[in-house]
Amino acid sequence: MTVIMDLNCDMGESFGAYSIGDDAKMMKTVTTANVACGFHAGDPVVMRRTIQLAKEAGVAVGAHPSFMDLYGFGRRRISGERPEDLEAQLIYQIAAMQGMAAAEGHPMTHVKTHGALGNMAAIDPELAAICARAVASLDRSLVYVSLPYSETYSAAEKAGLTVACEIYADRSYTNTGELTPRSQPGAVIHDIQQSIDQVLEMVLNKRIPTTGGKRLPVEPATLCIHGDTQGAPEIAAALRNALEDNGVTIAPFATPGRS
Amino acid sequence: MTVIMDLNCDMGESFGAYSIGDDAKMMKTVTTANVACGFHAGDPVVMRRTIQLAKEAGVAVGAHPSFMDLYGFGRRRISGERPEDLEAQLIYQIAAMQGMAAAEGHPMTHVKTHGALGNMAAIDPELAAICARAVASLDRSLVYVSLPYSETYSAAEKAGLTVACEIYADRSYTNTGELTPRSQPGAVIHDIQQSIDQVLEMVLNKRIPTTGGKRLPVEPATLCIHGDTQGAPEIAAALRNALEDNGVTIAPFATPGRS
Amino acid sequence: MTVIMDLNCDMGESFGAYSIGDDAKMMKTVTTANVACGFHAGDPVVMRRTIQLAKEAGVAVGAHPSFMDLYGFGRRRISGERPEDLEAQLIYQIAAMQGMAAAEGHPMTHVKTHGALGNMAAIDPELAAICARAVASLDRSLVYVSLPYSETYSAAEKAGLTVACEIYADRSYTNTGELTPRSQPGAVIHDIQQSIDQVLEMVLNKRIPTTGGKRLPVEPATLCIHGDTQGAPEIAAALRNALEDNGVTIAPFATPGRS
Amino acid sequence: MTVIMDLNCDMGESFGAYSIGDDAKMMKTVTTANVACGFHAGDPVVMRRTIQLAKEAGVAVGAHPSFMDLYGFGRRRISGERPEDLEAQLIYQIAAMQGMAAAEGHPMTHVKTHGALGNMAAIDPELAAICARAVASLDRSLVYVSLPYSETYSAAEKAGLTVACEIYADRSYTNTGELTPRSQPGAVIHDIQQSIDQVLEMVLNKRIPTTGGKRLPVEPATLCIHGDTQGAPEIAAALRNALEDNGVTIAPFATPGRS
Repeated sequence: MTVIMDLNCDMGESFGAYSIGDDAKMMKTVTTANVACGFHAGDPVVMRRTIQLAKEAGVAVGAHPSFMDLYGFGRRRISGERPEDLEAQLIYQIAAMQGMAAAEGHPMTHVKTHGALGNMAAIDPELAAICARAVASLDRSLVYVSLPYSETYSAAEKAGLTVACEIYADRSYTNTGELTPRSQPGAVIHDIQQSIDQVLEMVLNKRIPTTGGKRLPVEPATLCIHGDTQGAPEIAAALRNALEDNGVTIAPFATPGRS
Repeated sequence: MTVIMDLNCDMGESFGAYSIGDDAKMMKTVTTANVACGFHAGDPVVMRRTIQLAKEAGVAVGAHPSFMDLYGFGRRRISGERPEDLEAQLIYQIAAMQGMAAAEGHPMTHVKTHGALGNMAAIDPELAAICARAVASLDRSLVYVSLPYSETYSAAEKAGLTVACEIYADRSYTNTGELTPRSQPGAVIHDIQQSIDQVLEMVLNKRIPTTGGKRLPVEPATLCIHGDTQGAPEIAAALRNALEDNGVTIAPFATPGRS
Repeated sequence: MTVIMDLNCDMGESFGAYSIGDDAKMMKTVTTANVACGFHAGDPVVMRRTIQLAKEAGVAVGAHPSFMDLYGFGRRRISGERPEDLEAQLIYQIAAMQGMAAAEGHPMTHVKTHGALGNMAAIDPELAAICARAVASLDRSLVYVSLPYSETYSAAEKAGLTVACEIYADRSYTNTGELTPRSQPGAVIHDIQQSIDQVLEMVLNKRIPTTGGKRLPVEPATLCIHGDTQGAPEIAAALRNALEDNGVTIAPFATPGRS
Repeated sequence: MTVIMDLNCDMGESFGAYSIGDDAKMMKTVTTANVACGFHAGDPVVMRRTIQLAKEAGVAVGAHPSFMDLYGFGRRRISGERPEDLEAQLIYQIAAMQGMAAAEGHPMTHVKTHGALGNMAAIDPELAAICARAVASLDRSLVYVSLPYSETYSAAEKAGLTVACEIYADRSYTNTGELTPRSQPGAVIHDIQQSIDQVLEMVLNKRIPTTGGKRLPVEPATLCIHGDTQGAPEIAAALRNALEDNGVTIAPFATPGRS
């Protein structure tokens, strides 16, 4: 039986005169692009260019909405927002991205929340429900990308959305299946071979190895690839090669127009 | 034969803690709302609330895109932008609004450009073509609201869009059918009876009276109603009453879901 | 012995085309204005106009810095900011205000932090230290306005700043001298006579009445007056009259050029 | 007689997570830094870091104010602004920078306007007067950096400011002493030797060579060095070496605390 795996990467994070990342290069390795929607990064021009690049490269695109926080790149935790306000902000971003992608003839396939919003929603049922509801209210055929063992996963399923289970190569997992917080030792895996081993265990054996020595069941659909870290393209290529060498087919979890 | 006329008004111009206009009140008089899309005014929360208000009131909604200029409320002229950049900004705004309106079950019917962008495009063929192209690339069924005798009118027709011809009650017209520039005397009509007379001449007799004494042919579809000027609700009601007293039916130029 | 009391009010909160509050009116009652610095409200034009109004009215001005959050009006809690980053943002805002006030010949006298930043710093020693350090690094002669029994009060004193102790008319106090959180019943005092009684107790008898029936010692220098609530000017006048009727002299806690 | 020449460069143009330029590297070659003030680029954190870098490197700092236009990097022409509004915006930016520099113990020496604002003011007497007035109203000891044969130069002198005459290595001059517009052929000098020759002619012989073959008198004080173009550090070093080889002393036109 063929195992299929998607590689997703955050893209379109440039803004005005400011550039971040080498999207054109990363497009050669990954199969899905999460495109910033102008709230934490990106702008309409960058979004359109990113969609066009993705279309040419056969890479699927989706919305990567965030808190409204360009200065903090969406990494600052913002609270005190009314839930319905955040929902409206998400609908706005996702709709803008969906319309732009459609206008380019490359319909978007999914939504993945960014940065602090994603981290907060993963452990907050109310926030998770808002995120899921925003997507569902726009288009129930959009796939929701989420970590397993998270509030976002449950909320998306509850909202009737298809969820693409996302795994990390360079982050360790706790015994409850969450990412080890960055503040703790061993949270980040710096060794590429260890990253590869973890990914193969998750993709081939459907098990998450935890820091406490457990093995948790998982059905991974997409692997998160970083585009802006040191040596990003090389690491991405190594992960892809390792998967392909082990018989895994690399392909988007959803295809434009056929999601 | 029944004459039908739409009354359109800019709405949803509040932002965060800041309020402008009394949309709920204006909704009782007008039939179409041009909703700010967050670039010169408005924010996702305001947009959603405005769409909901309009739906309840049976008022049609559309996008009111602008230059990216919250500080200047879209009234400052911005140049030096690459044409394709402006096009992307328009698509973004219109798509965000379209998605939000659809999510509320009140699909949007049209697009009307705001402020400095609208004024500049009316006399600049290239800018007018960009505006029309942005709308057409998203959805050819969207109606384009434009002054007659303008570059935007021609460009929208050329792009295959349905154009709703817009007239003004409180602005005089030059012999070439353009609005008299505000810098010139007599540009603004302050007398409400004179405004009513001008509107009736345009709506009933299909003729624009000009400052040079001419009568230019016109097929008006929608009358621009101001919501934020002194005595706005009373002026709006007076105009509506005058039209209805003369047998004109007040109704949206396009109906959600049937545009 | 004459008791002197200052009345301070947040002003200059308009932005671009958006207006909040009636500063000209409030200037007739209060003696000190906390001017928004463009991060949560205000803009350079509004700041200058507010300084000019204050100068004419003999009202002292100071900086009212905030988190960078125009959309949330500085009321959202933002975390994940590096301490040194917040310090730089405060210095920037205070310096901008100080320079503008000096350019108008009306040197500013003080600093009071706004909204979520103020609330968070009041109970967070590290945040409080950052705020105090930002002020001290610019100008040690600036007075720091702070609630008593707070981390900001201690931090400002530790930084060698003169602190103006601020009291509230419409908020109750806990037994530890803090404002009762708004989430709790009885946090806000709606009865104007009760507000007046509390203020007189604090100003004349130098005691804070607490919800637990205690009396805590206090040396109030300035009373916080709201400018944007329902009936604000009337409430402000009632408080001022009550103080004056009881022999209190209403005057700024610091005079421009003589701070 | 020793000829002294300053080399100025725009710095501090990063914003939040976005980086532009290698300021630390350019600091080794130039003697004066024009620091972005947060309106077209830069933010408080970047400003402070840039001031600290400059202090360590013995580089003078000044304010580099702009139109409020982060998205357009201050390169878009904005009109329709009331003159007094622009003046307030300039005072705000310059005051913020001046306060931050003072807080770091490295008082700023000058002001140079950025991008579209600088270009527009160079040929518009009203705009030029606003820029000069903004500086003068804050601090008459600040040096105003300006092209010769420009409205800004005249306006700054008229306002009683010391003007540092700025020259370009890579731009040709018209017969009236202005920079040849970029839209015309020959506007930009790509040959480094030709740039050096032009600079030496201006610095040593006090004459501007024009495209029409004229020689216009000039008293240059500072040479504009680009920091973000291809090969910027090498070109800067070549210009500096050529000047030093010809006996020119490279030093700031104004020294902090002794301006």
